[in-house]
Amino acid sequence: MTATLLDAIASDATIEAFFSEDREIEAMLAFEAALAGAEAEARIIPPEAAAAIEAACHSFRPPLDALRAGMAKDGVVGPSFVALLRKAVAEPHGKWLHFGATSQDVVDTGLVLRLKALVAELDARLAGMIEALEHLKTAHGETALMAQTRMQRALPFTAADKLDTWLRPLQRDRVRLAEITPRLLIVQFGGPVGNRSGLDGKGDLIAERLAARLGLGAAPAWHTARDSIAELGGWLSLVSGTLGKIGADVALMAQNEIAAVRIAGGGSSSAMPHKSNPVAAEVLTALARYNAGLVGTLHQALVHENERSGAAWTLEWLVLSQMAITTGAALGHARQLIAALNFMPDASIVQPAAR
Amino acid sequence: MTATLLDAIASDATIEAFFSEDREIEAMLAFEAALAGAEAEARIIPPEAAAAIEAACHSFRPPLDALRAGMAKDGVVGPSFVALLRKAVAEPHGKWLHFGATSQDVVDTGLVLRLKALVAELDARLAGMIEALEHLKTAHGETALMAQTRMQRALPFTAADKLDTWLRPLQRDRVRLAEITPRLLIVQFGGPVGNRSGLDGKGDLIAERLAARLGLGAAPAWHTARDSIAELGGWLSLVSGTLGKIGADVALMAQNEIAAVRIAGGGSSSAMPHKSNPVAAEVLTALARYNAGLVGTLHQALVHENERSGAAWTLEWLVLSQMAITTGAALGHARQLIAALNFMPDASIVQPAAR
Amino acid sequence: MTATLLDAIASDATIEAFFSEDREIEAMLAFEAALAGAEAEARIIPPEAAAAIEAACHSFRPPLDALRAGMAKDGVVGPSFVALLRKAVAEPHGKWLHFGATSQDVVDTGLVLRLKALVAELDARLAGMIEALEHLKTAHGETALMAQTRMQRALPFTAADKLDTWLRPLQRDRVRLAEITPRLLIVQFGGPVGNRSGLDGKGDLIAERLAARLGLGAAPAWHTARDSIAELGGWLSLVSGTLGKIGADVALMAQNEIAAVRIAGGGSSSAMPHKSNPVAAEVLTALARYNAGLVGTLHQALVHENERSGAAWTLEWLVLSQMAITTGAALGHARQLIAALNFMPDASIVQPAAR
Amino acid sequence: MTATLLDAIASDATIEAFFSEDREIEAMLAFEAALAGAEAEARIIPPEAAAAIEAACHSFRPPLDALRAGMAKDGVVGPSFVALLRKAVAEPHGKWLHFGATSQDVVDTGLVLRLKALVAELDARLAGMIEALEHLKTAHGETALMAQTRMQRALPFTAADKLDTWLRPLQRDRVRLAEITPRLLIVQFGGPVGNRSGLDGKGDLIAERLAARLGLGAAPAWHTARDSIAELGGWLSLVSGTLGKIGADVALMAQNEIAAVRIAGGGSSSAMPHKSNPVAAEVLTALARYNAGLVGTLHQALVHENERSGAAWTLEWLVLSQMAITTGAALGHARQLIAALNFMPDASIVQPAAR
Repeated sequence: MTATLLDAIASDATIEAFFSEDREIEAMLAFEAALAGAEAEARIIPPEAAAAIEAACHSFRPPLDALRAGMAKDGVVGPSFVALLRKAVAEPHGKWLHFGATSQDVVDTGLVLRLKALVAELDARLAGMIEALEHLKTAHGETALMAQTRMQRALPFTAADKLDTWLRPLQRDRVRLAEITPRLLIVQFGGPVGNRSGLDGKGDLIAERLAARLGLGAAPAWHTARDSIAELGGWLSLVSGTLGKIGADVALMAQNEIAAVRIAGGGSSSAMPHKSNPVAAEVLTALARYNAGLVGTLHQALVHENERSGAAWTLEWLVLSQMAITTGAALGHARQLIAALNFMPDASIVQPAAR
Repeated sequence: MTATLLDAIASDATIEAFFSEDREIEAMLAFEAALAGAEAEARIIPPEAAAAIEAACHSFRPPLDALRAGMAKDGVVGPSFVALLRKAVAEPHGKWLHFGATSQDVVDTGLVLRLKALVAELDARLAGMIEALEHLKTAHGETALMAQTRMQRALPFTAADKLDTWLRPLQRDRVRLAEITPRLLIVQFGGPVGNRSGLDGKGDLIAERLAARLGLGAAPAWHTARDSIAELGGWLSLVSGTLGKIGADVALMAQNEIAAVRIAGGGSSSAMPHKSNPVAAEVLTALARYNAGLVGTLHQALVHENERSGAAWTLEWLVLSQMAITTGAALGHARQLIAALNFMPDASIVQPAAR
Repeated sequence: MTATLLDAIASDATIEAFFSEDREIEAMLAFEAALAGAEAEARIIPPEAAAAIEAACHSFRPPLDALRAGMAKDGVVGPSFVALLRKAVAEPHGKWLHFGATSQDVVDTGLVLRLKALVAELDARLAGMIEALEHLKTAHGETALMAQTRMQRALPFTAADKLDTWLRPLQRDRVRLAEITPRLLIVQFGGPVGNRSGLDGKGDLIAERLAARLGLGAAPAWHTARDSIAELGGWLSLVSGTLGKIGADVALMAQNEIAAVRIAGGGSSSAMPHKSNPVAAEVLTALARYNAGLVGTLHQALVHENERSGAAWTLEWLVLSQMAITTGAALGHARQLIAALNFMPDASIVQPAAR
Repeated sequence: MTATLLDAIASDATIEAFFSEDREIEAMLAFEAALAGAEAEARIIPPEAAAAIEAACHSFRPPLDALRAGMAKDGVVGPSFVALLRKAVAEPHGKWLHFGATSQDVVDTGLVLRLKALVAELDARLAGMIEALEHLKTAHGETALMAQTRMQRALPFTAADKLDTWLRPLQRDRVRLAEITPRLLIVQFGGPVGNRSGLDGKGDLIAERLAARLGLGAAPAWHTARDSIAELGGWLSLVSGTLGKIGADVALMAQNEIAAVRIAGGGSSSAMPHKSNPVAAEVLTALARYNAGLVGTLHQALVHENERSGAAWTLEWLVLSQMAITTGAALGHARQLIAALNFMPDASIVQPAAR
């Protein structure tokens, strides 16, 4: 992808890295090494082969050009990746590489390995965001504000009341993530058609050992059941959606005539130097709406035809990475916004809001 | 809404009923009665007032025309509903009706009361669908089929292998629903600006008693945090998405040249009497894609401005009911499809698929 | 569909009627009558048969229950409709009914016949909306307002400047509609597989005569190329999108602290009698976002498999009617909003905005 | 953006380049130079100032780091771009740079300048695609195929019949583009609040001269009316949607059991060497569904608050570039697919399809 000026507000280098060529290759090498180890343990492949495969996975890096060409030709990186790695392992051990596995096993498990680190990163940011909001509540929660319902002044309340409406959904999102991860952070291992055939009845055992080696959960193959991927997308959009609500609130409160918040260091205008624009707040709303649209598209990929749909799988790839980057970027903007946010007491409120 | 011929495949009378005027009014009456009871218990309103309110909620039905006019004028049924009911209660007790509450409390809790029954209905259908698939697996799981990956013949497997890929996500959906409901089936009670003010500090107590009377969970107000509604939408689309995948699989397997399934009683053609169209399978795919699009729109409603957004709330209403009906209709079609489905052994497979 | 309280703000009886069972049946009868006439003219069917068919189409109304059952079974109303009508025509003429046609011909052309009247209705409403805005501009265009960029006060301008930004896209939408209609308001006539086979080489001639009789354009069959339907959906959402922008502007301008507009007869609150909510403005925003989501789903139906996709076609039905109703409802709300709208001069602006 | 393996199938270097930092800067420099020239012509700024500005626009390239930082701070590149360029022009001429303009003028017109080249590129590809399909029709149009309706064998027809259903919507898309471009390829020039104030009444004249210098149409400011951007998005998705339909058809026809087409050089499998996957066909379907989702999100950006919405504008940026790249990539894949496509006569059809 070409760099754009938009990247300065919409990208997130840390999250993007999880989808980089290098990290995908690393994850696929980890899968093949762990599979060989698990299959040797299960006495399905010779221990010497496993050792040779593990060594190759440790030292070999397939040439990017060949992988890109393979991806373009096959629509999935699996075949060229395995072919290149097999050549590096060399015979007599090469034939035991990827034994009983299929492209989807290495690609999906490779994705999950990266998602594990990715959701940990997002969860940590979410925890940080929650902490920042709680800190703000402790420091300035008593500020009297005017609640606004249906875009009209309603009755007085406090900054703490407002902050609670921002905090609670984010707290629930952490609970949700804890519920989702056991379904998501699992190994995909099914072989060509998903039933772990051709492994002497040891398919489930290998899957368990493979999962343990990779620090993932064991589960039946899910190659065609993409519900947990769609569920993750829903979660990503729940998070960015709440942050978008915070952005919308802040942009409304920052209006000159309302002035319920002041944002330190707002954006400037090329024509009107007096302005201080609520840039981060607006970006949060944009990112929320972008992710909301994307989650709908990700759900389209649930219609995954038969035992592997190139169409639905590709659609998933197109969308999921965008969603994760968007949520990551939103968490970044939100954190900065909260750090710059000052609640301004509403002068029209005679006394502190009753409770 | 006007009846259309499309209703014959896209509607679901049972689910639609949850969104009918009558059911919404009933639920709102239940809220007001329970609130009065809870507030009397908390000594916030006189017990005689509570009794009068409960009696009115039991016998009074507000005229539909007046409610519709109120809805059109106010954008929410709350104000006209409360005014009409208050008149029915009459003074001196009428002033204690809806005490400390706001339109959103009665409307949102009224929705949740109906969602409780609705998700129970969907869960029961889901359980029935799972049972039907398990039955099919027991009866015909050994049928040899050809797995198809990327729209090409892959390797033999069995009907049981295929059925497992349909069953597992539906089983996970039941687990998901159990996780979601405690967040969803909770009372909304916040008063004008969501902080339960004006109740002598007894707001939380009243919320608890109210929740108990209604058979819902107690929780802080969530008037502006719509994450659990969006989460329910995600769940509805996960269910219809898996059913759409089943539909897509069946339509592909039912192709004449493939004939991996036969569907009893397929649809006819006005021009080609020899045809037997996989109607239910196609409808399932359509419903899945419809719901997928809708879940994206529902997430747009997460950007809920300030203490009440008429725009976001209305958007939620537009979408959520459609999604529930769509999932309900999909479960109906899916159940019929499974009942009519026969797996046909692939003649080209010499021996049963190895495992 | 069951009546809901939401209908009071989201439905449009006039537009819904175009999708009613009765209107669909009428349109299909008009198609069959015109087809018979055209085929008699082309000497493909006997004139007596045409006369009998035309007579039956004039007087016969198929029983709704049988049509609904046929729709449920076949996924399309065509087969049962033709069978019932054929029985009414009776032999020896019945066999000439629907001659060389297929379900899609009668259903799609039946849709287009109704779309013709529907877009005329929407265009008239659009013209009325434009006129209302121009009237407002003439009457109050000089009112000094403060422009708001990025949610901040920018520089003074006038109500006329603001109204121009509302007017121009609506004016462009009328131009767009004039461009779209020749592609949209065309007959669908292709026969079983779309190539007008089995008509003695007179397929194109019949299509022309059929089109002329129905007041539609003639064109090759478009049974699988749904681009003009998707294009109509785009237009519907462009219209509701601009109205949603007007709604968002009005809701922002109507904020108490800004008071750049006053809306006569705003919505009330059950808890805060002092409020006057910008209900129509909020509803416009909700309808815009609903339609925006739907247009994305309608474009999913462009992936129309092979010579007829039950899945894509059903999806189209689900979405297109919703979109038309939504745009119709939005035009209704917008018209009322403009009628109630008063611009309030910004007291802080010392002199009229410079130009 | 980080490079990903997915880029090998989903990116399009030529189209991405239109959104690169360099091209955006070039386009903005072209705007400022042309504006200075137009304003000198209109005697609004001194000719020496215009000459100095034009010279600076010719030679100066603002440092990327500063632009990125400005973008991050201001949410739009305009302010930092103008500040850096002004410094390069230096006083006494610098103050005449960007005179009477605002960030949106330079950014939106800069976008349109690139869209002009972009749609020309896409139109040329579309013409090439149409030519390829026509060539295929001439060469192999008589091949007898079995039409498939609702996923079932219908009646025989020919490859030409099939190709016509692919060709016609693409031909219509070229007509559509010709209709859209006069509305789209226009200058944006409105000044701070869009009414061309502060230019001595010469705003319209300057806009005309500016447009002429840039090879764009002249029109009133459209800073808040994003309908033509959304319309372009609709067009992009119509194109990719038809290509997705072609992809879906090909993938279905390429099924082993049907074998109505053979695709030269299909994708391979890591586990099943006998397979030849219809990769490009599947990718086309994925790209169509991705763009369909995105067009819905782009329409969300029609709700553009007041005189400039940072939120809606950012959302537009996020989506439009993705859509253009997706359509570009789809046209590339489609062209390759058609080049590799061979229709295989259906052996079961006794004689050529009747017409």
